[in-house]
Amino acid sequence: MNNFSYITPTRYVFGHGAEEKAGELAKANGMTRVMIVYGKGSVVRSGLLDRVKKSLSDSCIESVDLGGIQPNPTDEKVYEGIALGRETGVDGIIAVGGGSAIDTAKAIAAGILYDGDFWDFYTGKTVVEKALPIGVVLTIPAAGSEGSGNSVITHRNGMKKLSLRTDMALRPKFSCMNPELTFTLPPYQTACGICDMMIHIFERYFSPTTGVEVTDRVAEGLIKAIMTETPKILADPCDYDARANIMWSGTLAHNGLCGTGRAEDWASHFMEHEVSALYPEVAHGAGLAVMVPAWMTHVSRTNPAKVAQLARRVLDVNETDDTKAALEGIERLRAFFTSLGLPSTLSELGVKEADIPVMVEKLHINKGEHVGAYVPLTASDTAEIYHLAM
Amino acid sequence: MNNFSYITPTRYVFGHGAEEKAGELAKANGMTRVMIVYGKGSVVRSGLLDRVKKSLSDSCIESVDLGGIQPNPTDEKVYEGIALGRETGVDGIIAVGGGSAIDTAKAIAAGILYDGDFWDFYTGKTVVEKALPIGVVLTIPAAGSEGSGNSVITHRNGMKKLSLRTDMALRPKFSCMNPELTFTLPPYQTACGICDMMIHIFERYFSPTTGVEVTDRVAEGLIKAIMTETPKILADPCDYDARANIMWSGTLAHNGLCGTGRAEDWASHFMEHEVSALYPEVAHGAGLAVMVPAWMTHVSRTNPAKVAQLARRVLDVNETDDTKAALEGIERLRAFFTSLGLPSTLSELGVKEADIPVMVEKLHINKGEHVGAYVPLTASDTAEIYHLAM
Repeated sequence: MNNFSYITPTRYVFGHGAEEKAGELAKANGMTRVMIVYGKGSVVRSGLLDRVKKSLSDSCIESVDLGGIQPNPTDEKVYEGIALGRETGVDGIIAVGGGSAIDTAKAIAAGILYDGDFWDFYTGKTVVEKALPIGVVLTIPAAGSEGSGNSVITHRNGMKKLSLRTDMALRPKFSCMNPELTFTLPPYQTACGICDMMIHIFERYFSPTTGVEVTDRVAEGLIKAIMTETPKILADPCDYDARANIMWSGTLAHNGLCGTGRAEDWASHFMEHEVSALYPEVAHGAGLAVMVPAWMTHVSRTNPAKVAQLARRVLDVNETDDTKAALEGIERLRAFFTSLGLPSTLSELGVKEADIPVMVEKLHINKGEHVGAYVPLTASDTAEIYHLAM
Repeated sequence: MNNFSYITPTRYVFGHGAEEKAGELAKANGMTRVMIVYGKGSVVRSGLLDRVKKSLSDSCIESVDLGGIQPNPTDEKVYEGIALGRETGVDGIIAVGGGSAIDTAKAIAAGILYDGDFWDFYTGKTVVEKALPIGVVLTIPAAGSEGSGNSVITHRNGMKKLSLRTDMALRPKFSCMNPELTFTLPPYQTACGICDMMIHIFERYFSPTTGVEVTDRVAEGLIKAIMTETPKILADPCDYDARANIMWSGTLAHNGLCGTGRAEDWASHFMEHEVSALYPEVAHGAGLAVMVPAWMTHVSRTNPAKVAQLARRVLDVNETDDTKAALEGIERLRAFFTSLGLPSTLSELGVKEADIPVMVEKLHINKGEHVGAYVPLTASDTAEIYHLAM
């Protein structure tokens, strides 16, 4: 096990009516005038935005709106939010939505207090030392951003998708999590979210670090729980307990717990980011559903042990040979994703084989000669994985 | 799943040399003069106390000593610490040790800033609204107090052992966790600690709340990891990774993670507290190793389902009938405890059968007519469990 320093200071207020606590939580965190960052009209149409605003005004907190955040959120909205926030003098940011709204809120929270370009944080030019406090009302369990210090933003011109990881500065002060708010999520979006959270766990699970039985077992338990609860949601989208289990799993998948004491991989995520940067209509979770089995297939050629462990412990594969166990596990995982209506090839997502060299080149420019930790991948490896995924 | 509000603001600094970070962490938390609370001479003899003091003085932090905390710590040392702290004007408390030192530090941290008797917090007369910041250098993985807001103190005269649970006020600001510090723990103390952490998980796992697959699976994973790593420590007390897995499991067992969204039980703990209050020489973990299988046997008569789930998912019991599966699981668990050198009867601990009525009476005076949640226990039930444990 590696040394680590770990803190998760977010307060999670979870359950029925959690969004109605937004006001008192914002007040307890010193907010008096906030920017509400949200995405599509569904937050407005469902009346959720009004309920959050009422909760805020009941606690004497003013608010300004920044709506229209898109999936795979871009810097355009971040710049708009920074300008709006400075102009109106907000002292807190409340994201109402999923990862796109939250990640945008984080970029704005850091950018408002920074004299330079907010991209400096994402390119590693500087680190986030201060940020406005952030609160969340979660509507899409997927990205895990409600409990993480991380944010991913897409450059609108350069088709570049960059991720930022902070220890503590950008962790939300509070996250209101009401599973009922997810009852109306369409099946495809539900499935993409579930895939995203599973792979947040995999990115930590597939590690070269040994002697990490405790986080291995926690990770396996989370995956098992997600795979048990998902069919219940497919059968009944309003199954409260199933939605609650999935929502809480999404947070635990990405708040860092499963990564304590180990090197993490993230190759699949980085490879997918190049796909959805080039094809913005591709949902991150759908891209991952394709890339991860391809990645697993490739790494199992040289290092099948951990894939085999997952197969045996979580996917009920009964096979002593590591390579065979790994391949059987990958098939079962792919079948699970397919059962959710997720794609199994890049072709299904409209990705052209001719674009593979572009994605490979950008990937290694962004992430260096070797990508990932479980098996460090060269450009030749990542090209092969993209081809496997076609 | 039940509604919950959950926050774990402790920073865990984990790994080789973690204790050397105490000074910078104390400084970052605003401490300038601290009380160091510790137990036996081993902390002194090993040189650990000196290393912690050097780390503190390197960060310009002064310190005063409160040594001699005993297992099952009493109010006597709490009063002494409160007086010493007020006299010397400390602004932080650093516990160096295990649960006894940390729980005492918490009582002092709250008591120093309170005009009344610190027992008021433990009897429920008032709640902790403010406390001095607490830091920890952990040497015994067991109580989980390094990550919890809880504390248990024994009344030196009344043989009363009371527990206090706070949401956030008494959670340590930081905990330095170096697994190497546990290499010299004697086998019996190691075993008692392992039993304690396993049962911190059970107390949450055995819940009447349904629809909690995610925390069930996390709890099961933690138990499995503990049972996998323990034999490695018995074989080699200096196995770093095994010690690290056990140390981190002890924190995750009791920082509240496994209890999110569910009613908790705690009957076994409360029953054991009466044993070790009356027989202070009984280590808490040893008392639990006896009480928990007896408790499981009793509750399996009316509600075997969850015991059977544990048996099948964690203890590899292959039996479809719930009652039979539960009983086989209990036998395997008892055998595991015995393999660690832990007792399986109260008689082995020197407890006299004639004292059962006293323990039952005090238990229900302290905890009410019904104790526990998985199966609420009357005085007749708890008496029977004590008899089963003899």
